[in-house]
Amino acid sequence: MVWEITALVGGGVSMAVAAYLYSWVMAQASESDAMNEFSEAIQSGAAAYLKRLFQALAFLAIAITVIITAAIGWQSAIAYLVGAICSGAAAYTGMYVATRANARVAWAAKSGIQKAFPVGFYAGSVMGLSVVGLALIGMTVLYMIFHDTEVILGFSFGASSLALLAKAGGGIFTKTADIGADLVGKVEFDLEEDDPRNPAVIADNVGDNVGDVAGVGADIFDSYVASVVAVMVLGAVLYTEEYVIYPLLLGAGGIIASLIGMMFVRTKEGGDPGKALNTGTLVTTFIFAGIALIVTRLVGISSPWGVFWPTISGLVAGVILGFTSDYFTDINNHAVQDTAGAAKTGPAILILQGFSYGLVSIVPSILGIAGAMVAAWVTATHFGIAGTYGVSVAAVGMLSITGMIVSADAYGPIVDNAKGCAEAAHESAETIRVCDKLDAAGNTAKAITKGFAIGAAALTVLALFSAYSETVGVQSLDLRSPGVVVGLFLGAMMPPFFSALTILSVGRNAFKMVEEIRRQFKEIPGIMEGTVKPDSNRCVDIATQGALKELVLPGMLALLTPLAVGMLLGKEALGGFLAGSIVTGIIFALFMANAGGLWDNAKKFIEDGAHGGPGSEAHKAAVVGDTVGDPFKDTAGPSLNTLITVMCLVASLFGPVIAKYALFGL
Amino acid sequence: MVWEITALVGGGVSMAVAAYLYSWVMAQASESDAMNEFSEAIQSGAAAYLKRLFQALAFLAIAITVIITAAIGWQSAIAYLVGAICSGAAAYTGMYVATRANARVAWAAKSGIQKAFPVGFYAGSVMGLSVVGLALIGMTVLYMIFHDTEVILGFSFGASSLALLAKAGGGIFTKTADIGADLVGKVEFDLEEDDPRNPAVIADNVGDNVGDVAGVGADIFDSYVASVVAVMVLGAVLYTEEYVIYPLLLGAGGIIASLIGMMFVRTKEGGDPGKALNTGTLVTTFIFAGIALIVTRLVGISSPWGVFWPTISGLVAGVILGFTSDYFTDINNHAVQDTAGAAKTGPAILILQGFSYGLVSIVPSILGIAGAMVAAWVTATHFGIAGTYGVSVAAVGMLSITGMIVSADAYGPIVDNAKGCAEAAHESAETIRVCDKLDAAGNTAKAITKGFAIGAAALTVLALFSAYSETVGVQSLDLRSPGVVVGLFLGAMMPPFFSALTILSVGRNAFKMVEEIRRQFKEIPGIMEGTVKPDSNRCVDIATQGALKELVLPGMLALLTPLAVGMLLGKEALGGFLAGSIVTGIIFALFMANAGGLWDNAKKFIEDGAHGGPGSEAHKAAVVGDTVGDPFKDTAGPSLNTLITVMCLVASLFGPVIAKYALFGL
Repeated sequence: MVWEITALVGGGVSMAVAAYLYSWVMAQASESDAMNEFSEAIQSGAAAYLKRLFQALAFLAIAITVIITAAIGWQSAIAYLVGAICSGAAAYTGMYVATRANARVAWAAKSGIQKAFPVGFYAGSVMGLSVVGLALIGMTVLYMIFHDTEVILGFSFGASSLALLAKAGGGIFTKTADIGADLVGKVEFDLEEDDPRNPAVIADNVGDNVGDVAGVGADIFDSYVASVVAVMVLGAVLYTEEYVIYPLLLGAGGIIASLIGMMFVRTKEGGDPGKALNTGTLVTTFIFAGIALIVTRLVGISSPWGVFWPTISGLVAGVILGFTSDYFTDINNHAVQDTAGAAKTGPAILILQGFSYGLVSIVPSILGIAGAMVAAWVTATHFGIAGTYGVSVAAVGMLSITGMIVSADAYGPIVDNAKGCAEAAHESAETIRVCDKLDAAGNTAKAITKGFAIGAAALTVLALFSAYSETVGVQSLDLRSPGVVVGLFLGAMMPPFFSALTILSVGRNAFKMVEEIRRQFKEIPGIMEGTVKPDSNRCVDIATQGALKELVLPGMLALLTPLAVGMLLGKEALGGFLAGSIVTGIIFALFMANAGGLWDNAKKFIEDGAHGGPGSEAHKAAVVGDTVGDPFKDTAGPSLNTLITVMCLVASLFGPVIAKYALFGL
Repeated sequence: MVWEITALVGGGVSMAVAAYLYSWVMAQASESDAMNEFSEAIQSGAAAYLKRLFQALAFLAIAITVIITAAIGWQSAIAYLVGAICSGAAAYTGMYVATRANARVAWAAKSGIQKAFPVGFYAGSVMGLSVVGLALIGMTVLYMIFHDTEVILGFSFGASSLALLAKAGGGIFTKTADIGADLVGKVEFDLEEDDPRNPAVIADNVGDNVGDVAGVGADIFDSYVASVVAVMVLGAVLYTEEYVIYPLLLGAGGIIASLIGMMFVRTKEGGDPGKALNTGTLVTTFIFAGIALIVTRLVGISSPWGVFWPTISGLVAGVILGFTSDYFTDINNHAVQDTAGAAKTGPAILILQGFSYGLVSIVPSILGIAGAMVAAWVTATHFGIAGTYGVSVAAVGMLSITGMIVSADAYGPIVDNAKGCAEAAHESAETIRVCDKLDAAGNTAKAITKGFAIGAAALTVLALFSAYSETVGVQSLDLRSPGVVVGLFLGAMMPPFFSALTILSVGRNAFKMVEEIRRQFKEIPGIMEGTVKPDSNRCVDIATQGALKELVLPGMLALLTPLAVGMLLGKEALGGFLAGSIVTGIIFALFMANAGGLWDNAKKFIEDGAHGGPGSEAHKAAVVGDTVGDPFKDTAGPSLNTLITVMCLVASLFGPVIAKYALFGL
């Protein structure tokens, strides 16, 4: 009991600091009406979207709760609801603060970086700390009440089903607005990004928040919980209670490490805020390694080194993946410059180059993930711990520093929006320059989170995959059996299919958005002259409705296909299905994120003056590449982590039930 | 012995008919100097390319022969060489006839379809019959001499290593020329396709032959042999000699069925040549089903129904996949029209739509392949035959009608080139119309072969995968073991990586081609006025050299990675590696072929008058999509079948040796 209470205290500290930082951020001044007006438009758009999203999700959650109660038990159903609520609360909190912090950062930017940077970072930290705090408290309390790890699977399922819809919905929303705004604003009317005359600009900014803040928050909440739950399940099946509680204590240790690391995130006037964020991450990593060592010795695990080294394998792999995954998308790298160079022959070769380098970019990450797996497995088995438990612990090790990682990541869209506020208020060039510098640091943090999130998701789903095998009790998942192979093919098909559906959704909605923007420019001539305000709400509405409507089919697919495969072909085929979806899910997630980032930076490289600079034919070609990459990197790619997590959890939760009714056991 | 001789007679009949058709085609008149000149330019370009390719391959083949002799034995080494030579001979014969038939078809087209169609089809049949004849004779003779199925694996490896390089090299050649010719000719100088003033037009036409005739011939030769060999290996391990010879007899039966089917390929004046080709395919299918029934009863197999039904499962699945796989790329389908509609907003959304529908299009094919597997497995095991043997026999059943399928496919590029000849000779509109009609039928045949080839490759590699497990003697390929999972990830990474390398090659070479074409137009002003001939040979050279140089890296990858994985991680990991590469190989092959076809047809839909027709902004956007799709559907996509076959064969051949030296057995 003492260890459960320790974990609970860790979560409580996280929430307390989050509350303190929240009040500190809200106490910061924001005295420009123009900035506040811009910020309020984003706030109300974001609130409107989230309200609609949560209403829709409430129905879904109730339906799933009823099904879980009937099929599994009321305990899991309650855990499911609590998981969905905690995940939603973390995402909501993050977005609530983010949409209020932007104007405050912009106002502080008038006094320089030293003043503005903490406002942005601490606002981001509110979400970072809420994510880990709520997750840890939720899991620990449920475990204290029910003492049953299978119930906690329900909590994880609640978190991930909400994350899937928040992430995919946010991704569709943000790219609908972004592409729509660009296609009409930039291409047809030659407006700048964020020009307030463009009716879709507010929707575009709202999109940054619902996609990059709420979406990422829910996503990492989901991975974090899933990795801990997988270890708890395996610990309960294979070992004693110490092995079940271990991941919760790692979580608490990670919170302490993150809080210490955050103290090192500070920059002087003229300093580099990106460096400050990286210092915070590295300090957190080292402190956490020390804490993990202490935890393994104190908690009474029979083979402390057998869990310590896998934890460190995951932690190190996560940091390496984070810091190296932007190699291919780095603007100074030949892949980006080569792609930009292809723009001279028009968009076709540019698309082909970016597509190809995107595919090449998966190689180092896959090698890194494979290396982490092998390291965790070998060190665990060397000290007499089951390899599956070792790999799962590596995922927790990687995700333990989530508090710091998410804080740095959420900082990005806040300072990005701050720049929008400053521009809307026609601030001085110096203030804009400060905002730009803050924004550049945000992009670095975002790149790190991207590599980190995919690596963590890969290890987490492998852990969930082991948890599935154990809870369902499969004898063997032999690739020589036809059921496993057929399952493998069907599973492998899911991530590309899901990606296609979400991208098609963006295309359809962007089309509607384009028509609405054109209509406003045509029917309301005052907009262009700046005398009449555009009807931003209509654009937010189109993005919201589109996103929610388009979620139905991919959401159903994610929830129902694992059930269908299990019921038709049996639990071995379902195991193959999960393995197939994990493999292509990770490959497509990496490919899409990197190809998208590469096209984005190829465009920036040209905008910085290469190949004729802005306005040249090469630039037009690069804009095409960037638009193609937008839904890759911000809609389809980031949803895939969550998709495979949800499918693994559906399989683990319902596996024992459906396996009884399989039609053909292949 | 009587059954071996029967198989040999089947192969002999095939070659005899091929020889007769060859002399018949060569005896056809071709009396236009302009046509002959155009045709001869293609002949000499194609011969120059093939000579260089075969020279390069000779070195590789000798090196591999030495390695096989040292590592495995001289028997396998001889089989390897014979396999490479037979495959090369089939591809060379096909191209030799094709490049000579085009002018004859064009000349006959002046007398109408009824006269021209047989010239094109019988010229294609020379390759179709050579492929199956040489394959069957080669395998049967080697089996009669050595009576060892592992030796025949060497024959298959010879065929597939040649096919990989012929296919990938041809794919790089053809798209280098095509994209180069289009980017300068169509986009910069507003020339028509096939305008003789464009220096790259001859290279473009040569490319059609080296890619679509020689490449496809070597590719299907390879699948055909691999499917038969896999069944022979499994038959030898699991059962009696009847089960080893059975696939050879199916091959002989397929030849008889194809010869009968070919008699039904005839059309009257005003008839539809596409319908004639389809009739031939359907007749072949039904006749073959009857022959298969007789073979299973006569050959003395202990469970005739247990092999008959799997054979039929494969056959039916192949035909269904062939006839349905062009659903998504059909110009009358909403996917194509929807993509074409997106062209109105520019190239970006068009690319996204085509990309997405390409991903959606894998779903029905994967379901079809999974269905064929389940049907073969269930029917085999129902009659007491091992499921792995059943699935492998399904692959042979599917590929038995190869003679007819390849005949119809090779017809395509011949009549396509015939149109080029007619245009070069400034023939009447009526002759061009006849050529167009012949060409349209060729496109239908090509679409059918595409679906058929991918389905056949999928079942074949699954058969090879089973053969690998048996020859190497793995205990289990359990997805819960880390070696298998790490192997799965590494293998799954290979097809996307390989695709990226070949597409980047095309980009690089097309760039060189563009510069050469621009240089010629600039330095030799007479070209544009039509008074001086362009230097076509330089362009053929650039495409040839580029293709050969760019083959080195992907070729090494295909041959060496399976060895490296096996040596480092052991035979279980290598099994996972093969499974991973099969899954993503098939998914990427389907996706790339279909997305490419879809963009191609979206462009044609606009050229037929939709959304402003030729010259409109929508058309320009569609041209971008078509260019992006070119290396998808003609370079990367079609090479993937062969890539996974080669990797499976390397693993099977060298597996027993490398498994002894594995560093870490995970």
